[in-house]
Amino acid sequence: MRIFTLLFCLLISNSINAQDDKTLRSIYDLALTKSEAYENLRDLCKNIGARLSGSEEADSAVVWGQNILNNLGLDTVYLQEISVPHWERGRKEKGYFYNEKGKNTLDVCALGGSVSTGMNQFIKAEVLEVHSIEEVVALSDSIVNGKIVFFNRPMDPKKISTFSAYGSCVDQRYSGAVEASKKGAIAVIVRSMNVRKDDFPHTGSMAYEEGGDSIPAFAISTNGADYLSENILSFKGLELSLKSYCKTYPDKISYNVVGEIKGSKFPNEFITVGGHLDSWDLGEGAHDDGAGVVQSIEVLHLLKLMNIRPKHTLRVVLFMNEENGNRGGIHYAEKAASKNEKHLMALESDRGGFSPRGFSVSGTNEQLEAIVNWKPLFEAYGIHEFKMGFAGVDINPLKDDKVCLIGLSPDSQRYFDHHHSDNDVFEEVNKRELELGAASMTALVYLIDKYWMY
Amino acid sequence: MRIFTLLFCLLISNSINAQDDKTLRSIYDLALTKSEAYENLRDLCKNIGARLSGSEEADSAVVWGQNILNNLGLDTVYLQEISVPHWERGRKEKGYFYNEKGKNTLDVCALGGSVSTGMNQFIKAEVLEVHSIEEVVALSDSIVNGKIVFFNRPMDPKKISTFSAYGSCVDQRYSGAVEASKKGAIAVIVRSMNVRKDDFPHTGSMAYEEGGDSIPAFAISTNGADYLSENILSFKGLELSLKSYCKTYPDKISYNVVGEIKGSKFPNEFITVGGHLDSWDLGEGAHDDGAGVVQSIEVLHLLKLMNIRPKHTLRVVLFMNEENGNRGGIHYAEKAASKNEKHLMALESDRGGFSPRGFSVSGTNEQLEAIVNWKPLFEAYGIHEFKMGFAGVDINPLKDDKVCLIGLSPDSQRYFDHHHSDNDVFEEVNKRELELGAASMTALVYLIDKYWMY
Repeated sequence: MRIFTLLFCLLISNSINAQDDKTLRSIYDLALTKSEAYENLRDLCKNIGARLSGSEEADSAVVWGQNILNNLGLDTVYLQEISVPHWERGRKEKGYFYNEKGKNTLDVCALGGSVSTGMNQFIKAEVLEVHSIEEVVALSDSIVNGKIVFFNRPMDPKKISTFSAYGSCVDQRYSGAVEASKKGAIAVIVRSMNVRKDDFPHTGSMAYEEGGDSIPAFAISTNGADYLSENILSFKGLELSLKSYCKTYPDKISYNVVGEIKGSKFPNEFITVGGHLDSWDLGEGAHDDGAGVVQSIEVLHLLKLMNIRPKHTLRVVLFMNEENGNRGGIHYAEKAASKNEKHLMALESDRGGFSPRGFSVSGTNEQLEAIVNWKPLFEAYGIHEFKMGFAGVDINPLKDDKVCLIGLSPDSQRYFDHHHSDNDVFEEVNKRELELGAASMTALVYLIDKYWMY
Repeated sequence: MRIFTLLFCLLISNSINAQDDKTLRSIYDLALTKSEAYENLRDLCKNIGARLSGSEEADSAVVWGQNILNNLGLDTVYLQEISVPHWERGRKEKGYFYNEKGKNTLDVCALGGSVSTGMNQFIKAEVLEVHSIEEVVALSDSIVNGKIVFFNRPMDPKKISTFSAYGSCVDQRYSGAVEASKKGAIAVIVRSMNVRKDDFPHTGSMAYEEGGDSIPAFAISTNGADYLSENILSFKGLELSLKSYCKTYPDKISYNVVGEIKGSKFPNEFITVGGHLDSWDLGEGAHDDGAGVVQSIEVLHLLKLMNIRPKHTLRVVLFMNEENGNRGGIHYAEKAASKNEKHLMALESDRGGFSPRGFSVSGTNEQLEAIVNWKPLFEAYGIHEFKMGFAGVDINPLKDDKVCLIGLSPDSQRYFDHHHSDNDVFEEVNKRELELGAASMTALVYLIDKYWMY
């Protein structure tokens, strides 16, 4: 404990140093002029595209990651083998209902992990609209039985962080099917996790309980949800027809992709930066999380360009399977523990390639204070928010009482317009915003490597 | 001076008040749930569209502004008559050159205010690439004479604020024709003011000198500029052909649109909020400056919804002719001076409808300090930057030693992807980002009205 206190005294006394100011300026200059992040993202999105765990595209993404890291001239590049789930959507889903004007089609998609509605058949039943899991739990079986339960609680627009709005809404998507099936529902359809009104259905993970009924689960676009809700009000007993083709296959072998620059002073102490290589199967996984992948790679690229060899071993990890299992993140932490690797810090980018605004720190108060003390170095780059908070799904399994876990916090306003949908494409990422995020990550890694000790 | 000092003591002592915190929360809540800004912007962009001074669309925009303000139930709505320039682009411009592969067409447009290339004819001449006004000035007449001068200095990607990059580049667009014509150039073509590489030519104002030659002036997209530059290198004596159809007509009558809520305590002291109603003739004037117009209107709408009557008279001004003359802004300040109106503060939004990050203050150090003191009230909404800086073109003529001029500062990274081009359309504005800007403006107006005195 005493060492720790000394460490942070050292850190703070060094924290506003003219040389650091210059180094940060060089990092941002290089990121805005020589970064490969944007072209790497184009390549990943356009030549591979969506890459759900278990898919051929995920296999290609592993090879892609390995090639990119090999070309960086790192000290080591290797794979960590894991077993991943393999779920496929199959053909485009269908949804419709009839009202007095005739047939109304809806923008729907299966939630990830859902069972299908069965071979070549529609599920058709009366829709029951609810606004929470609790509401379903409180209803009598006779009201829910045989119906399609429609979870329609919107993300709260009043929350300034859209991640906070997501967090208080996503239980409907993840657990809606379990709770509805206990009351006899035959399917669920969930309002997409997006504040904006548009026509994109957003997929995402859902789960069944062992021993429970597995009923098909769908997402419906926000516009579609509003439209369906209006029609339920004006058309008593409205029946919805839904069809999906998805299927779960046996697990497959896949990999985390890892690259390292060996530490010059503390080769057995580690700083990890990463994002997740897998994506949902809609769109191109551009913001989620192609951006985080190419930014993490860029941290090592920028340090290489600057001829900075870190004191601690710096690792980039392209995690597999964040979206529907986090087996890559769990495996990485288990492997680190089994090898007794000391992690000083792990930094994840998995909130989109938007203008960076700060860092979300999951660590000790002393660690946060030390980072806050660097604020003056970051303000010129629009980085103001240094807060305690969740760091990232992939790195979270590393959590112990010493490691500092950090998440890059970009501006969150547009993120859920893209997340898990056909709208998560390369064109929606701005080159400068992506580069500023990569520079901010690099600057933080540089400072922690320079001033922190395990 | 003594009064002023007392004023700011008062201000600071009141500045972190639990009630203010609640009021700001209500302002943001309302803006994110009940704002009319986004639908007003849709209406302005989609039903009127581009609205350059002197155009029929600008006339429609004046009527539109008057109607919106009338529907708000303000104490007064009126027009301020001004005379505005009237320039029309005419048909879509053409640009091409030949190389060994044949004809290459370029994405070009006339700069605003330019003369045309003449009735139904192309200008054709060798291109001379330069990177600054100074470079042209230093060249001998014989090198420039008879050529088309191509100004190709890019906006500096290393500048974190794109406005700063714009500011150190836009002299090429504004004054390039004047300086090139003095050396005998027959036309100029200027790299578009955008960091991003794309195919949109960006227009904007340029000027001629009295007594000088008026030569046609064009913009070329950033991709086009790079392509042209490569070809100039590989093809000695490359000749460019350009054609434009634009024309300046006699001045027309137009209007600033003004609405007021009378101050409950100081009706003869004024707070003005505004944006500019005119736009360039490409795109729909969504970010520039439809966003600022609907946000300024929203300030009064939100205060009305909250039943807050300001102590000072609150004015919204939809300025005409910011883009090519600023006659609305100049007239507004002259009128205010002639009526001896005391302006406490004027706030402008004219940097796009992106996530707000702070305020740019043109005032005294005491005024800035007083605003900085409110930081804790704003941080929860992502507003961190309170800096001395330029406030806005429309309100700038109000500048004196007392008034505090303030500009809303949104995230600047994407602004020049849209500015003055076909890409400045409603779809490129995010509803939440627009609303957060309107809320931030309302919060600042609320605090200044409450705590400041003239």
